[in-house]
Amino acid sequence: MASLGFLFFFLLPLILLELSSSRSVMAAKTRHFKWDVEYIHWSPDGEESVVMGINGQFPGPTIRAKAGDTVAVHLTNKLHTEGVVIHWHGIRQIGTPWADGTAAISQCAINPGETFLYRFKVDKAGTYFYHGHYGMQRSAGLYGSLIVEVGEGEKEPFHYDGEFNLLLSDWWHKGSHEQEVDLSSNPLRWIGEPQTLLLNGRGQYNCSLAARFSKPPLPQCKLRGGEQYAPQILRVRPNKIYRLRVASTTALGSLSLAIGGHKMVVVEADGNYVQPFSVQDMDIYSGESYSVLFKTDQDPTKNYWISINVRGREPKTPQGLTLLNYLPNSASKFPTLPPPIAPLWNDYNHSKSFSNKIFALMGSPKPPPQNHRRIILLNTQNKIDGYTKWAINNVSLVLPTQLYLGSIRYGINAFDTKPPPDNFPKDYDVLKQAPNSNSTYGNGVYMLKFNTTIDIILQNANALAKDVSEIHPWHLHGHDFWVLGYGEGKFSEKDVKKFNLKNPPLRNTAVIFPFGWTALRFVTDNPGVWAFHCHIEPHLHMGMGVIFAEGVHLVKKIPKEALACGLTGKMLMSNKHN
Amino acid sequence: MASLGFLFFFLLPLILLELSSSRSVMAAKTRHFKWDVEYIHWSPDGEESVVMGINGQFPGPTIRAKAGDTVAVHLTNKLHTEGVVIHWHGIRQIGTPWADGTAAISQCAINPGETFLYRFKVDKAGTYFYHGHYGMQRSAGLYGSLIVEVGEGEKEPFHYDGEFNLLLSDWWHKGSHEQEVDLSSNPLRWIGEPQTLLLNGRGQYNCSLAARFSKPPLPQCKLRGGEQYAPQILRVRPNKIYRLRVASTTALGSLSLAIGGHKMVVVEADGNYVQPFSVQDMDIYSGESYSVLFKTDQDPTKNYWISINVRGREPKTPQGLTLLNYLPNSASKFPTLPPPIAPLWNDYNHSKSFSNKIFALMGSPKPPPQNHRRIILLNTQNKIDGYTKWAINNVSLVLPTQLYLGSIRYGINAFDTKPPPDNFPKDYDVLKQAPNSNSTYGNGVYMLKFNTTIDIILQNANALAKDVSEIHPWHLHGHDFWVLGYGEGKFSEKDVKKFNLKNPPLRNTAVIFPFGWTALRFVTDNPGVWAFHCHIEPHLHMGMGVIFAEGVHLVKKIPKEALACGLTGKMLMSNKHN
Repeated sequence: MASLGFLFFFLLPLILLELSSSRSVMAAKTRHFKWDVEYIHWSPDGEESVVMGINGQFPGPTIRAKAGDTVAVHLTNKLHTEGVVIHWHGIRQIGTPWADGTAAISQCAINPGETFLYRFKVDKAGTYFYHGHYGMQRSAGLYGSLIVEVGEGEKEPFHYDGEFNLLLSDWWHKGSHEQEVDLSSNPLRWIGEPQTLLLNGRGQYNCSLAARFSKPPLPQCKLRGGEQYAPQILRVRPNKIYRLRVASTTALGSLSLAIGGHKMVVVEADGNYVQPFSVQDMDIYSGESYSVLFKTDQDPTKNYWISINVRGREPKTPQGLTLLNYLPNSASKFPTLPPPIAPLWNDYNHSKSFSNKIFALMGSPKPPPQNHRRIILLNTQNKIDGYTKWAINNVSLVLPTQLYLGSIRYGINAFDTKPPPDNFPKDYDVLKQAPNSNSTYGNGVYMLKFNTTIDIILQNANALAKDVSEIHPWHLHGHDFWVLGYGEGKFSEKDVKKFNLKNPPLRNTAVIFPFGWTALRFVTDNPGVWAFHCHIEPHLHMGMGVIFAEGVHLVKKIPKEALACGLTGKMLMSNKHN
Repeated sequence: MASLGFLFFFLLPLILLELSSSRSVMAAKTRHFKWDVEYIHWSPDGEESVVMGINGQFPGPTIRAKAGDTVAVHLTNKLHTEGVVIHWHGIRQIGTPWADGTAAISQCAINPGETFLYRFKVDKAGTYFYHGHYGMQRSAGLYGSLIVEVGEGEKEPFHYDGEFNLLLSDWWHKGSHEQEVDLSSNPLRWIGEPQTLLLNGRGQYNCSLAARFSKPPLPQCKLRGGEQYAPQILRVRPNKIYRLRVASTTALGSLSLAIGGHKMVVVEADGNYVQPFSVQDMDIYSGESYSVLFKTDQDPTKNYWISINVRGREPKTPQGLTLLNYLPNSASKFPTLPPPIAPLWNDYNHSKSFSNKIFALMGSPKPPPQNHRRIILLNTQNKIDGYTKWAINNVSLVLPTQLYLGSIRYGINAFDTKPPPDNFPKDYDVLKQAPNSNSTYGNGVYMLKFNTTIDIILQNANALAKDVSEIHPWHLHGHDFWVLGYGEGKFSEKDVKKFNLKNPPLRNTAVIFPFGWTALRFVTDNPGVWAFHCHIEPHLHMGMGVIFAEGVHLVKKIPKEALACGLTGKMLMSNKHN
C-alpha cells in the first residue's frame, strides 16, 4: 500500500456544520460577517501567487445561513488602489437590487479603505457561492461558498447523514491584471488553459496525488496535509448517505466531476430541487451549482478518488483530485482504483444527455404558459477595429462609467439610449465563420416591462475560426429562469412546440452547446438592473453580456454609498457646500 | 572600430522643441492635453512587462509649456479596476491645491472610466516631471517629463545651443502590485535592488551597450534602434553648449550621472537657478531635477558614454548607458573611452561635497531671517506588530480613506485629531538601532499657521540593523524650501548658527545623509494640504511621510470631482433624491 504522503484532517465545513447545528436558532436571524478584502501571498497549487483573499484566507470564508435569514456582510476594501464588489451568485436580491455586487450595474465599486454593507435576505435554501464582479477579480481569487440551509423546522426533500462542500475553480500563474491586458490587446493574446484545477482553492501543480496514473507523467506529491495546496479530504463512514454540494466558479473551464466507484444522485441545481437522477459523472459549468447524494456502499477497506476534469475545450490541465477516505482507513491508504476517467472533452452528446436529465422536482413553480416578449441573442466572436471581442446580436458590451441602476432610477442619460436588438438578421448563417462587418461596442439596456414573461433564446454560432463553436454558460442576475429546452442549429418558430412547459428546471445558469440554442423563460418580477452574461470571465471581459432593466421606478432607498460615483454621485451632490 | 549594433536616431524632445519654437506664442496660453492612462505591454529593458502607460506610450508624453502658461490635462482613467491620480512634481499649485494629484490628500482618486481635469499654472521655468501618487503606481511606470521654458520675451541666465531631456528611473521585473504585497507582509519581503536603470524609460537587461567594460560581464546588446529598450542617443555638434535637463523618478535608487570626458556645469536645481558650478559627475536623488550645461569640446572624431550608476546602496544593478554622438560621426562608432566610473557607492563625502556646492543664484528669493516654528522629524525604521515600517517621530503614516483637503476644508473629523509631535525624546540616540517600543500608525496632520515661517529639521538615525542608516530624499508638495544646511549626528541648537541664510538654494527635494540632519525653511503661503515625504516609493508605502495643512479655510471652489469619495462625497450628497 503506497503512502499518499499526507496526513488526514477534517474538512472545515464539517466542523462549522456541527457548530451551527448545535445552536438552537428559533427564528430567522441576521448573520453578520466582517470581511477585509486584500491581496495575500498564497499557494493555491504549490506555486506561490498573489491572490485576492478575504480575512487573510483563500478562498474566502464560507457563509452558512438558513433560509429566511438576512446576511449582512460588512465588506472593507483593503486593496491599495483597486475598487471591489462581491456578487452573491444565485441570491436573487429581491427588493435589494443594489446589493447584487456588480460594479457599474448595481453599485459603484467600493473604494480602497471604504466599507460597504451587503445586506440581503437568503430566501431559498440551496448551494450558492460568491465572487468578485469587477474587472477580472474573480480570476484573482475573490470567491467563496455560500450555503443556505432549509429554514428552521423545514426539511430537505431527501435524507443524508453528512455533507461536504466543494467549490471548484481553475488557476493561472499569470496574474489577473496581466490577463486583462492580454485580453484587451490587438492582436488578442489569449490567456490559454489554466495551470491547475482547484477544489476548495486547492490543487497540485508539478505533482500529482495519483502520480502513477497521471498523463502527462508528474511526480508524486509529497504532502503533510498542512500545506495550502494539500487537498481537503472527504472523510466518510461506510453505508451512509452524504450530500456533496458542488459549485463551479471557474474563470474558463467546464468540468466533469466523478467519485471513483460511486454513483451520484443529483437532487439540487442552482438552489432548486430537481427530480433525482443517478449518474456516474456530471458536467458542471462555470456559474452552476449542484447537490448530489452518494452512498458509501463500496468496499469499506478502500479509499477512492474524487476527480474533476476539463470538458468542452481540449484539456491541457491535469485533473484535479481529492480523496474520499472511508473511515477508519488511514487517509494515506492509496486507492486501488485509478482516478475516474472523464468522458472525451468533445463528447458533447454526453454533456447534452446530462443536461436533458434535469427536471424540476414535482411541486416546483411552473412557468407561465405564454411569453409577452421573446429576445433572441446571437452569440458571436467578432473583430472590432482589429480587437477580438464577443458580441450579442453584434453588440459587444462595454460597461459604462456610470451606474445603470442609479442612472435609470433617476433618469440620467448615461448610456446608449437606443436599446440593443431583440433579434439578429434572418439570413445570418450560424454555421459559418462570424462575419466582421457590423459589430460595434455598446452599453444599451434591454428595458423589460415589469411583471411580464420574457423568453430568451440563446443562439450559438460559429466563432472566428472555421468549424469552431464554444460552450457558453449564461448566468442571469436577480432571477431564476426556467430552461425550456435545448436544440441544434438555428432556432426556428417550430421549435417552440418542443418547449418543456411541464417540469422545466429552474436555474440561474444555463449552457449553450456548440452550434445549438437554449430557450429560457423568466418573469420580470424583481425591480432592478440585472446582468445576463456568459460566466466565462475572459468572455465577459471581451463583451459577452447584456443588461436587463425591469421596474426600476419601483426601486426604493438605494443606499447612497452604492450611488457615490460618476453622474449619480454628482446628482446627489448639492451646491450648498461649495 | 567596433559596431554598437544600433542605428542613430533623433531624440523626440529635440523634435518637439523645434516644433514649439517655430510657433510664435505671443502670450501665456492654456495648453491642453488629452491623456488616457492604461496598462500596456512594454519592454523597458528588453524583458516584456505590463507597464502603466499614457496614450499607449511609456514613459508618458513630455509636457512642454512656457512660464505663465496654464496646463490642462484631461486625464481619463482607462484602467479596469484601479483608481489613478498624477502628481505634477515641482509645480507648486498656487491656488489649485486640488490639482496636486495626491490620492487621499489633495483629491479623491479618479475612478476607472472617469476623466479628471488637472488645470494649473506653470509659473516658474524649470525642469520638472510628473508621476502617479497612488499606491505604487509610480513603480508601475506612470511618469513622464514636464518642461517649463522661460516665458515669452524672457531669457535664461545662461546660453546654450540645444537641449536634451533625460528622465531617470529604475525598473523591477516584479509587478508593482506584488511589490506592494511584499512590502506589506510580515515578515517584510524587501523588493531588492532594481533589475535595470532606465534613461527616458530605456535600459538594457541581460546585455550591455558597452559589454567589454561591464561588470558583471554581459553580452553586447545587438540593437537596431527601433526597439523600445534601445537608448535615445544624444546627437551633438562639436564646440556647442548643450543643456541637459535631468530628473530622477526612481522608486529606490540614488544615482550618479556622468558624461564621459566632459565636465558638467550645474545651473538649475528643482526649477530654481543655482550659482553655476562645475563637476565631473553629479548625484541625483529620487524627486530631484537639474539642468547641467556641457560643452562639446572633446575630440570630435569620437563618441562618448553617458552613464548612470547606483549610489548610497550596494549596487546590484548594472550602470545605465546612452551615447553622446558627435556629429557627423556615425552613432555606431564605439567610444574609445570606457563608460565613466562612478564614485564608490558609499563614498558619502563625495555626495555631501556635491550637495554643499549648491547655492542660489544671486537675485534669488531669500529666506526670512527667523522662523515661527521648528519641527524636528526623526526618521526611524521600526516594527509595529511585527511589520517593518518607517516612522517619523514614531508615527508611521497610513493614509486615511478620507480626503485631507476636503475634510479639513469642511470640518469633517476624518483622521487623528491629535497632531503628531514636533520633536522626539531628547534622550533618543540616533546612532543606535531603532527601538521598537512606541511606534504607532497614524494619520494626524501638522496644522501650520498661514503665512508663517517653518523650519524643518530632518533627523536621520540608525535603522533596524546595526550601524545602518539610509539616504532619504524628502520631497515637499506645494512649496519650494530653502536648504539651510546639512550636518552630522544629532541636530542641536548650536547648529542654527551654521545655517546659510545668505544664499541657500530653493528646492522641493532634499536628502538626508546617513546619521545626519538637514535643515529646511519654508513659508506657509499656499493654502492647501501638502504631503512631505521620503520620495523612495517603498519607503512612503511603509509610512515615511507627514501631512502639512496651511490656510485651508482660504481654499475656494474645490471641484466636486476631487471630493466625490468617502465622507466629503457623502457631505456633498443631499437628501432630495432618495
